[in-house]
Formats: sequence, C-alpha cells, structure tokens
Amino acid sequence: MNAQGTDASAPVTVIGLGLMGSALAGALLDRGHPTTVWNRTPRKAKPLADRGARVAVTAGDAVAASGLVLVCVLDYDALRTVLAPVAEAGGLAGKALVNLTSGAPEQAVAMAAWATSHGAGYLDGGIMTTPPGVGDPRMMFLYSGSEAVFETHRPALTALGDPLYLGAEPGLASLYDSALLGLMWATFTGWLHGTALVTADGTTATDFTGVALRWLNGAVSGFLTTYAPQVDAGHHPGDDATVDVQIAAIGHLIHAAHARGIDNSLPELLKATMERAAAAGHGSDSYASVIEVLRGGATRR
Amino acid sequence: MNAQGTDASAPVTVIGLGLMGSALAGALLDRGHPTTVWNRTPRKAKPLADRGARVAVTAGDAVAASGLVLVCVLDYDALRTVLAPVAEAGGLAGKALVNLTSGAPEQAVAMAAWATSHGAGYLDGGIMTTPPGVGDPRMMFLYSGSEAVFETHRPALTALGDPLYLGAEPGLASLYDSALLGLMWATFTGWLHGTALVTADGTTATDFTGVALRWLNGAVSGFLTTYAPQVDAGHHPGDDATVDVQIAAIGHLIHAAHARGIDNSLPELLKATMERAAAAGHGSDSYASVIEVLRGGATRR
Repeated sequence: MNAQGTDASAPVTVIGLGLMGSALAGALLDRGHPTTVWNRTPRKAKPLADRGARVAVTAGDAVAASGLVLVCVLDYDALRTVLAPVAEAGGLAGKALVNLTSGAPEQAVAMAAWATSHGAGYLDGGIMTTPPGVGDPRMMFLYSGSEAVFETHRPALTALGDPLYLGAEPGLASLYDSALLGLMWATFTGWLHGTALVTADGTTATDFTGVALRWLNGAVSGFLTTYAPQVDAGHHPGDDATVDVQIAAIGHLIHAAHARGIDNSLPELLKATMERAAAAGHGSDSYASVIEVLRGGATRR
Repeated sequence: MNAQGTDASAPVTVIGLGLMGSALAGALLDRGHPTTVWNRTPRKAKPLADRGARVAVTAGDAVAASGLVLVCVLDYDALRTVLAPVAEAGGLAGKALVNLTSGAPEQAVAMAAWATSHGAGYLDGGIMTTPPGVGDPRMMFLYSGSEAVFETHRPALTALGDPLYLGAEPGLASLYDSALLGLMWATFTGWLHGTALVTADGTTATDFTGVALRWLNGAVSGFLTTYAPQVDAGHHPGDDATVDVQIAAIGHLIHAAHARGIDNSLPELLKATMERAAAAGHGSDSYASVIEVLRGGATRR
C-alpha cells in the first residue's frame, strides 16, 4: 500500500457488465488494478478489454482470478444463477465477495448466509451514484457485512468512490440505499413542485434552483442536524418552528399552487401528515415529531 | 458606508415584536443601528429597550423615526390595521417600507400597490430562517419589489442575514418562500421516512442523518443542478437515471418499509406520480420530466 492508501497491485474481478458493472471495472482499471471481467453476453466486455481488462471465459474462471470479486448483476435471481455453479465447484472458498446488486435487505441477509456457507467473506454494497459518478471520490458507496473484507479490500473499494462501512448486519447497506433514495425522490418532487410554482410566474428553474440548493444545504440541513438527536431521544421540542406553525404555512403554498393550476397531491399529503401529528398531540412539537405518525405510533400517544 | 459595505449609522424602525420581529430588531441593535421599535402590546418592547432600542409610543411615531421601516406582524390584516392610520396621516410618504409579514404573493402585490399609492417605496421579504438564525450571514432573506429600496438599504438588510433580490415583481419573495418551504417539508418527510426505516433495524437517526446530509448536499444536489436546465429547456434526457428505473427502485423501499410497519403514504404517492409521468411517455426521461405531471400537463403530451 502506498502513501495514498491505495494498492493498485491487488487484482479484482468484476462480474456483470451492465452500465454500472462496466463503470466499476473502468474505475478499477483507471486506478491500475489488474482487472478480470465476465459477463453473460461476452460482447459487453469488449470496451473494457480494449482498456486492459482480462476477459474470463467462464464465471468460475473470473472468480478464480482474484481474491476480491465484485458482482453487479440485474437482480438476485441473476446473482444466484451466476454464482451457484461456482460455489458448488468450491470456487467461492476463501474469496471476498462484494455484492453490489440492487435488492432488498432480506435478500442481502440470505445471500450473506449462503456465501458464508460456501466459504466466502461477504460484503453487501449500495452504490449511491449513477454510472458516470463511479470513480468520483465524493460519491458514497455504502457497505455492510464482513468488516474484515471491507478493511482488507478498502484500497480497491476506494477506487470506486468513498467507501462507508455501516456495520456487520448485511442488510444495512441495502436498507440505507432505499432510505436515501426515498429521501431523494421526496426532495426531487418537492423541488419540482416549487419549480412549477415559481416558473408559473416567469422565474427560470435554474434561478430558483440556485436558491433552493443554498436552502437545502444551509438551513434545511441545519434542521435535520437538530432534529436527528430529537428523534433518537424521542423528545421533539418545537422551540423555533412547531408543527402547528408549519400547518398554517403550508396553506399558503397550497393556495398559491392551486391558483397556478399545479398538482397539489404532495403538499396536501404533507399537510395531512402534519395534521395527523398535531392530532396526536404534537402540534407544539418540532417537525421531528412527525416520525411518530410514520412509525404508525400516532394513535399510541 | 465603511469598507465592509455596512452603515451602522442608518436608523431603522421595526414594527411588530413577536419572536421574529424581536429577532430582527436585536440583529439591528447588534450591528449598531439606531433602532426604534413599536408593538401593539408595549410589554414586548422591554427586552429590546434594555438593549438600547428606542420605544415609540405610536406606530406613527415609529414610522416617523426612520427612513427604513421593517414590518413583521401576524398577517396582512394586522399589517393594514397598523399602517392604515399612518398612511392616512401621510406618514408613509418617502419611507422605504420592507414588509416581512408572511402571506400570499397576491397579498404582497396588493400591499405594494397600496404602499406606493401612499408614497412609500415597497419591498416584500421572505425570511428563510427561524428567529434564532436572524443575524447569521449564511441565512437567506429573499426580497422582491423596489430595487431602489433594496440597494439603498442593503447595509441594514445585511444585518439580518444574506439579502437576495429576486426582482421587481412584489410577489416573488413570497412565492419563493412558499416554494422553498414546500421543498423543505418534502425533504423533512422523506428524511423522516428513511429514518423510520433504518432505525427500525437498530441504526440511530444521528448516524443515518450524517450519511443523508452527504447524500443531499452531494449527489442529490448534483441531480438538481443537472435537472434545472432540463426543466428550462423542456427536454429531459434520462441518460443516467430514468423514470422507469426509479419506479422499479421505489418498489424496494415500499416493500422494506411495509415489512417494518412504516406508513408508506409518501413513497406510494411518489411512485404514483412517477407512474403518471411514465404513462405520459416520460418513462425513459429523467426525473425532471415529472414536472409535466405537476403542471397538469401529463395528459397533453
């Protein structure tokens, strides 16, 4: 390992050469890792071969080529189809298997047990970027499962992005992945609703988005930082902004958007959710208390 | 004006001393502005008087004391009740009136016309922070209306936070305010849903939020930066992440949250919104195309 904490001599295998798998292999090649690739349809390996990848003929050969094996295929069915024959031939024994296939936490847990039963160390991963972002050190790659695999292969994982280890429970990376995407879709849709509102009066989306990004990365992020420990403590003091105040304010948004012909499904749902929190006794609490509604606990209070 | 662009000698009047009005007056006093305050119930002026504010006996006296008059009262009814007698006595003539009262864009437009008819320059403002954030130069104060008022009084406005001028249309600040709050509530609720998901499996909200903030301020912000010009161009190429791909992925979130007893109203709505976009022909477009659904234009395509 050199001073930068990278070890470009470690061989790595990448199985699955869709857009994401190809990006992973490309990032490893860019960092100088001897990279072996395999795909069900060999044609997709061609661009990587041109960049110096070794193309394995079978999945078993691919797994045999490196101590670290990254797998990124369509789904868990495809994952089992590819790996089961390799495992039955004893090919997974002693390997570090890093599964970057999208799926549910429960699938990751089952896969970890299966891989472990075949002698592999197992790490599950969530890629928090799109293929063009792979290799960018600002992009997060979330991992859970074997800490030994994570620590041993951190240099190669760092070639892909910024690796974060979440814990030994193999489903955590997938759970975080879903939770973060949910945050993203909510943010996207709130931003598009706001964009529809201001562009109805002649502002550009680009102008609005400059302000929206300052807002998100400043004050909104500050609120989340304040609210997270409130959630952990189960105590949500509404010092500076109560649920009741937000309920009053969202009326202005709904009114203004309605007047401009904009679909209000999202703010109506948010208002109803706040009202459920208020009805459960959280009117003078902070917005963090809304989690009690989402947890289905609003009627328990 | 000194080299920092501040002019602490300019007198300012603040009318309305609720939590926010008091914070505004306090920030002006902190920067050395001679500050006159007035409130319907005089008791609330006491802490500011102790910090050096001059307490006016009537609203008319308060307006007379300074060229710049900030008003932050409960609503537009209260605003008219306070200012109408002053205007009728000719007291608004030549004044710069900065209205920081919350309301709808249409109310700001009407107030601008009214104030102008009484000889005042009018600027409408949206305060994008809570009272404790007033005076923090990172916090945005949005303004629209008279650019002359904005430029002349920028030093005093800078004492409150970072002043952004959006344009001459007086309703813009209020419209942006609502749009940004809508983005905030959507982000809050998406974050709380994700927090409910991961804390169900033993993670803390604080741990998740550290990752969520990196996600919001990194990759998610990057998407918004990419999508804004797509909205402006009316062309939403789905190069790296299509609506169809998001529809598939949100199924994982809904499944994982359902298994943990979490209310899925928000992701179900987001999924339905994406499906409406796909049904309108945007399945292989980027998420930016979802704005066509929100604009009610999905059936037009």
